[in-house]
Amino acid sequence: MNIVLLSGGSGKRLWPLSNDIRSKQFIKIFKLEDGRYESMVQRVYRQIRNVDSGARITVATSKTQVSAIHNQLGDGVGISVEPCRRDTFPAIVLATAYLHDVQGIDPEEGVVVCPVDPYVDESYFAMLKTLGQQAEKGEANLVLMGIEPTYPSEKYGYIIPENKDIISKVSTFKEKPDIKTAETYIAQGALWNGGVFAYKMSYMLEKAHELIDFTDYQDLFAKYETLTPISFDYAVAEKESRIQVIRYGGQWKDLGTWNTLTESMEESAIGEAVLNEKCENVHVLNELGIPILCMGLHDVIVSASPEGILVSDKIQSSYIKPFVDKIDQQIMFAEKSWGSFRVLDVEDESLTIKVTLNAGHSMNYHSHKNRDEVWVVVSGRGRTIVDGMEQVVHTGEVITMQAGCRHTILADTELKLIEVQLGKEISVHDKRKYPLEQ
Amino acid sequence: MNIVLLSGGSGKRLWPLSNDIRSKQFIKIFKLEDGRYESMVQRVYRQIRNVDSGARITVATSKTQVSAIHNQLGDGVGISVEPCRRDTFPAIVLATAYLHDVQGIDPEEGVVVCPVDPYVDESYFAMLKTLGQQAEKGEANLVLMGIEPTYPSEKYGYIIPENKDIISKVSTFKEKPDIKTAETYIAQGALWNGGVFAYKMSYMLEKAHELIDFTDYQDLFAKYETLTPISFDYAVAEKESRIQVIRYGGQWKDLGTWNTLTESMEESAIGEAVLNEKCENVHVLNELGIPILCMGLHDVIVSASPEGILVSDKIQSSYIKPFVDKIDQQIMFAEKSWGSFRVLDVEDESLTIKVTLNAGHSMNYHSHKNRDEVWVVVSGRGRTIVDGMEQVVHTGEVITMQAGCRHTILADTELKLIEVQLGKEISVHDKRKYPLEQ
Repeated sequence: MNIVLLSGGSGKRLWPLSNDIRSKQFIKIFKLEDGRYESMVQRVYRQIRNVDSGARITVATSKTQVSAIHNQLGDGVGISVEPCRRDTFPAIVLATAYLHDVQGIDPEEGVVVCPVDPYVDESYFAMLKTLGQQAEKGEANLVLMGIEPTYPSEKYGYIIPENKDIISKVSTFKEKPDIKTAETYIAQGALWNGGVFAYKMSYMLEKAHELIDFTDYQDLFAKYETLTPISFDYAVAEKESRIQVIRYGGQWKDLGTWNTLTESMEESAIGEAVLNEKCENVHVLNELGIPILCMGLHDVIVSASPEGILVSDKIQSSYIKPFVDKIDQQIMFAEKSWGSFRVLDVEDESLTIKVTLNAGHSMNYHSHKNRDEVWVVVSGRGRTIVDGMEQVVHTGEVITMQAGCRHTILADTELKLIEVQLGKEISVHDKRKYPLEQ
Repeated sequence: MNIVLLSGGSGKRLWPLSNDIRSKQFIKIFKLEDGRYESMVQRVYRQIRNVDSGARITVATSKTQVSAIHNQLGDGVGISVEPCRRDTFPAIVLATAYLHDVQGIDPEEGVVVCPVDPYVDESYFAMLKTLGQQAEKGEANLVLMGIEPTYPSEKYGYIIPENKDIISKVSTFKEKPDIKTAETYIAQGALWNGGVFAYKMSYMLEKAHELIDFTDYQDLFAKYETLTPISFDYAVAEKESRIQVIRYGGQWKDLGTWNTLTESMEESAIGEAVLNEKCENVHVLNELGIPILCMGLHDVIVSASPEGILVSDKIQSSYIKPFVDKIDQQIMFAEKSWGSFRVLDVEDESLTIKVTLNAGHSMNYHSHKNRDEVWVVVSGRGRTIVDGMEQVVHTGEVITMQAGCRHTILADTELKLIEVQLGKEISVHDKRKYPLEQ
């Protein structure tokens, strides 16, 4: 199957583990049998591969997530990069054009679109395959997944099917209702709209050319910023009459808040933590390398990362967003395509960070206008290139770089270094990239 | 007045702000009018100076606290260093011998002994002066302070005075009782024993020579390890018949647990913190440089330092000790006589720390057998001496030191540096000191 995973924006509702550059789908929170942890995006990717080892997976996302996706899913995954955010319709058109024009997929093939972060079992992905196959049959232009509601939720839109068959025509769509209205919808046999649907590629390309003036993927990518933001539901789904829904009654959870997320944790703590026997319904997620001791707490989430620390009543944690918006914390940790970095110390005119490069990876070849840098290699082997001069480096090596000099480091093994940045105007934007002169 | 402040051992009950090397009296927790904070020992020192600007203050303490005391009180304070812990009687004898033999104080002068960490107002120290003057009069050999009880506490010993006068002879001492017994003591007019007393120096020296075989301060210091640990109450006070008590009815608090300590905090938070409007009776002490967000908590203390994070119900926080005993965390922060250091990053074969030297101070001249070191000066000016070679250094300077080389740095202004330690067996014990060859 062809599957497009929509990887959404910066979530602050899982602060401090999510932030402006790390979305919730990249937090490693689900324990594997070997004791390691995987993120939501890794879990979904693994589940799809288990159900359909030949699935062609494309992640539709913004530039800011590309590094994290490569870091977590490897270099094999297809990525349709949105130059900027223009809501779901342009994003789906861009991904479809990418499949057609870049990957050369037959336009008669089906495509399934799905958010990157549902907490589900594998039967969900088996159902996605069915959705794609149903779309290829051509009985309808769009085939939606309808999730059987477990309670009258105000958080989701509803799909009213014409009948109670597994596959039914869609009668109508309903916006997020209040609880009373939700109850009446459910009495009518309504299903939750989880944002999952399938179509034949040729259908979507036709719709795209109707609504957007473009020739091919390259052209669309180039003019992406000029497009009007519009949702897929509004632009297409609500206006389409040849539309079916397939009902899904398996596990499906939306882990969008600390409260729902911790319900799916197998243990009370990830990371270093001690909970005394008077703690009840307490969950700790600790990404700081220091212990957290909890005593006598009830219904509390404690979450700590280099960005900050949250201590919240579980119900209250749903109201986190305005408080996090007020916190003005610089980015303290980031995953990059080549590894990761963490800020260790901040002074007025210096910044000390720890850089971890994965084996075989390297930074961009770059320079800074307003800062000198010092690298101290603390583990691993690699090569530096400074102003064109290559040098083999290993643990203990010290490299000093004046402002303006071009530099990079290539890791032959996993390589860790302490970088001290020195200057009056230290900024992540003070960076100029160059092609590597090799 | 001559005052000896007993500065006690490593408290784990205020973890993570106190630890094996930082006792609770050094935590900066009390807000000054200028917005800065002072520690318990700084507060007491300042209060004594306000009441008696000529007071001769001596801190009796262990070697491990000397750096922190000089850092917080300056170099002017007298320190009687106990080579090891031998309980209060040997400690008081050592401090008294120090006053007599090192400082040359007239043996007819009074000495007041007082713990370093009572939370009191200045009337308390005015009373200490009265205690010393009363001891000099010679009506009694020992003059105790008796604190008027505010509730029947199980935590304190009691003094039963002969009558209710301000100054009375002591009838008898009582060990820490249960609540019922405490009530009967209080009905008899009993006072709390806060461990405060005064004596004429000649009296204590006489007692000391009766019980310990020594000639003078130097001799006592040299044989200190061979002494039998014994408390002052048991060795002297309970056997003394010429003993008076002066009653004190002013403010007096023992801030030994998070629960009692936070009651004396003027604000709900020290350090970066946001508390939402649903928080009630929540206190945050944050020594990490990252924000803490609290939501919907009741009666909770959150305390964070480079050593770890405590999140506890306030009542439960009294039972912290056994849990902290189980946490095996290396020292992550320490005050030294020359400034402070903080651990930034720990790897198997490297350790990165940030060192802050106060202006005019320097480290010991020292070497390490098993590690190389790299210094990157991130602010300030000073001079390094490496294997006898002096060099002026300033922001941006990088100094590399091989294992075995002798080195130090002298700060001309406040000076901050990042130190990367590299080696297979990094240990604080791998240090050899040398006299400076200047």
